[in-house]
Amino acid sequence: MRATELIAKKRNGASLTAAEIQWLLEEYTTGTIPDYQMSAFLMAIFFQGMDASELSHWTHCMLHSGHVMDLSHLNTIKVDKHSTGGVGDKISLPLAPLVASCGLTVPMISGRGLGHTGGTLDKLESIPGFRTNLSVALFQAQLDKLGVALIGQTAEICPTDKKLYALRDVTSTVESIPLIASSIMSKKLAEGIDGLVLDVKVGNGAFMKTHERAQQLARTMVDIGEKMGTDVIAILTRMDAPLGRMVGNALEVMESIDVLRGVGPEDVRSLTLTLAESMLTLGGLDPSLAKKNLDNGQALDRFRAIVAAQGGDVRAIDDPSRLPKAASRSPVIAEKSGYIDEVNGVAVGLAAMHLGAGRAQKTDLIDPGVGVEMAMTVGDPVKEGEPLAWLHHNGRGVAEASDKMSRAIHIGAAPPPVGPLVLEMIKTPHNVGNPA
Amino acid sequence: MRATELIAKKRNGASLTAAEIQWLLEEYTTGTIPDYQMSAFLMAIFFQGMDASELSHWTHCMLHSGHVMDLSHLNTIKVDKHSTGGVGDKISLPLAPLVASCGLTVPMISGRGLGHTGGTLDKLESIPGFRTNLSVALFQAQLDKLGVALIGQTAEICPTDKKLYALRDVTSTVESIPLIASSIMSKKLAEGIDGLVLDVKVGNGAFMKTHERAQQLARTMVDIGEKMGTDVIAILTRMDAPLGRMVGNALEVMESIDVLRGVGPEDVRSLTLTLAESMLTLGGLDPSLAKKNLDNGQALDRFRAIVAAQGGDVRAIDDPSRLPKAASRSPVIAEKSGYIDEVNGVAVGLAAMHLGAGRAQKTDLIDPGVGVEMAMTVGDPVKEGEPLAWLHHNGRGVAEASDKMSRAIHIGAAPPPVGPLVLEMIKTPHNVGNPA
Repeated sequence: MRATELIAKKRNGASLTAAEIQWLLEEYTTGTIPDYQMSAFLMAIFFQGMDASELSHWTHCMLHSGHVMDLSHLNTIKVDKHSTGGVGDKISLPLAPLVASCGLTVPMISGRGLGHTGGTLDKLESIPGFRTNLSVALFQAQLDKLGVALIGQTAEICPTDKKLYALRDVTSTVESIPLIASSIMSKKLAEGIDGLVLDVKVGNGAFMKTHERAQQLARTMVDIGEKMGTDVIAILTRMDAPLGRMVGNALEVMESIDVLRGVGPEDVRSLTLTLAESMLTLGGLDPSLAKKNLDNGQALDRFRAIVAAQGGDVRAIDDPSRLPKAASRSPVIAEKSGYIDEVNGVAVGLAAMHLGAGRAQKTDLIDPGVGVEMAMTVGDPVKEGEPLAWLHHNGRGVAEASDKMSRAIHIGAAPPPVGPLVLEMIKTPHNVGNPA
Repeated sequence: MRATELIAKKRNGASLTAAEIQWLLEEYTTGTIPDYQMSAFLMAIFFQGMDASELSHWTHCMLHSGHVMDLSHLNTIKVDKHSTGGVGDKISLPLAPLVASCGLTVPMISGRGLGHTGGTLDKLESIPGFRTNLSVALFQAQLDKLGVALIGQTAEICPTDKKLYALRDVTSTVESIPLIASSIMSKKLAEGIDGLVLDVKVGNGAFMKTHERAQQLARTMVDIGEKMGTDVIAILTRMDAPLGRMVGNALEVMESIDVLRGVGPEDVRSLTLTLAESMLTLGGLDPSLAKKNLDNGQALDRFRAIVAAQGGDVRAIDDPSRLPKAASRSPVIAEKSGYIDEVNGVAVGLAAMHLGAGRAQKTDLIDPGVGVEMAMTVGDPVKEGEPLAWLHHNGRGVAEASDKMSRAIHIGAAPPPVGPLVLEMIKTPHNVGNPA
């Protein structure tokens, strides 16, 4: 086999065989096929796509390029959630303990933030002492004990995806639905899960700007799950404005704790319950358990147990003053009266990034206490001079953040129509609610 | 500017500005932009193309990445010919001296062969002592004296094209009309010419398999010439069977000398005259001079002068036994009677390559004496047992060559219709016949 021939084959719109895909990915991972051939191949995929059979082989090879967790010794059903990412999306924090408290195992491997989006790991690490770099052995031991652990991608998991993603990032080949879908699915299936709930964001604040693109991505991931024998429910959710009121690491931890206490913003609570109900359905449990365990405090207890197990300061859960806090708080003021008819999530995310809550470059350091607190959201009436939002800052990036915020929030004459948060559900056709 | 942004811009179908193209090509040539970004960009061009403005900037940057000949001190019009390449295409050998003998300057920079196609340099070097690696100074001195010189690409000419072409070769991004067109035009315009005749081959034996693709390529190159102020005539010519009877280096030199003597195959003579007439037209001369100087021996005299000036053994011109000769000659026998209705030029070229006349890899050595001599061509009647062709060989690759040849020649019940050699001419709209 020659790499140039496989590039030409894909470029011309043909389908690669399982053996060709395996050869290409193995030779690339070991460095025999150089980056410059793989990047041409990836760009050919951008234009020509991959069919269902190619996609399952591709995902299978990425998955088996590294360690695949074996959690078969646990007598529970293993489920996880993945979100395509959005500004203020802290759902994993209340969701993972909630679902674990209902009796399922949640082996959650998450990522870090880049650009306008934050990362679950960065948020958790704003809790003093919290460690996300557990070894696979410690991860499995915690799953045994608590049914839930939250860690970062390790070098042992999907090394091919890791290498490919780094290349896609610098060759403008990220935005390809088959490449996105196979990257997400290989990493999630490496967790050894029985079922997966996907939160596919749609809208101005999301990676997928249109319902159609989000549907394609969701359908592609569900198809991969079906081919590979894992039950998947994809939920398309609206993401224009940030989710919740808080954007920033410690700020989002506080908001997550609020939700676990039964307070907190309605959209965060509602999406947490929706995703938990789907995970429970995949696990063959009564979905109404989710609301019950969120309201009776069992989810919060499980969150406390996670923080304790992963080295975090449990006292910060009940006393948020122990979380990192920015030195200053500056308002973003309404320049006219009316109704907030648009909040651009990406702009809010970039504002938070400028304050130090996120990374412009992968190597940037996070300032855990800073971020944006929305005082109002879409649909709210506002009077000139009122604060629309607060910048929690330590002096850095305030001018840039103020500029982003002033562009992020639009005030109109009337409140806009408010659509539903959940737009559509797409599921694997078999076994759902009854996994093997 | 960032490379990823420019890749995404092209990927999304937008046009790059002159400044963006210049930055991209300069940073690539110096190595600041790595191969893996450029190969993704090239694949994006494969799918999205380049518009006329991008193409002329792209060609301009490649052209000016290296030395551009200044032949303005010569009081003649400078013209050249480029062929997109075909099996048995030795036209440059009789054409260059013919046109120079008519009074134009022909500063011809040629390439080497790879795969099924031969190269003008390899053919010339089969003349004992012939040197094609003249310095630019020697090249110009010979042009002064003889009005013609035939050399190879130097490191000083179009280094960006050289680097890009090597990358395209290993990333399956060769077959892109804008990339082919700009590569050819930048190298030819670096010769400092006033006019260019392009022989764009169409058919089974050619790089462009269809009339439509050949038209696109021709139109693209003519448009680049127009934008850059150089007159161009593109001639689409049929290339199914090999051109002439000989495929192999010394064999093609012999056939070229035959044509310069007024004998030799009719197709080689006819195409030589057609291309010479167009070059004379571009040079403002009477096109009928071509036939006159071919028939009166002046073209042959000029060829002798070139061989002498470039260190070759002039005696070989009048005594072909001084050219390298294969030790053996084996026939390819007709297995049935009928009419030859197809000769696959690519297969004949590969047969010659297996014998050692061409290169499978760039680093392969050429055996100058070997090759294929067609005893018959398309339309000829043939009886079972007659030789269809002769393999001139030194024992190497005979089995492979015989196998290729038996597949190359098809014998049918009736002679096929014979189309014209010249299919179409496409020219720059202004100045043709009256260059500045």
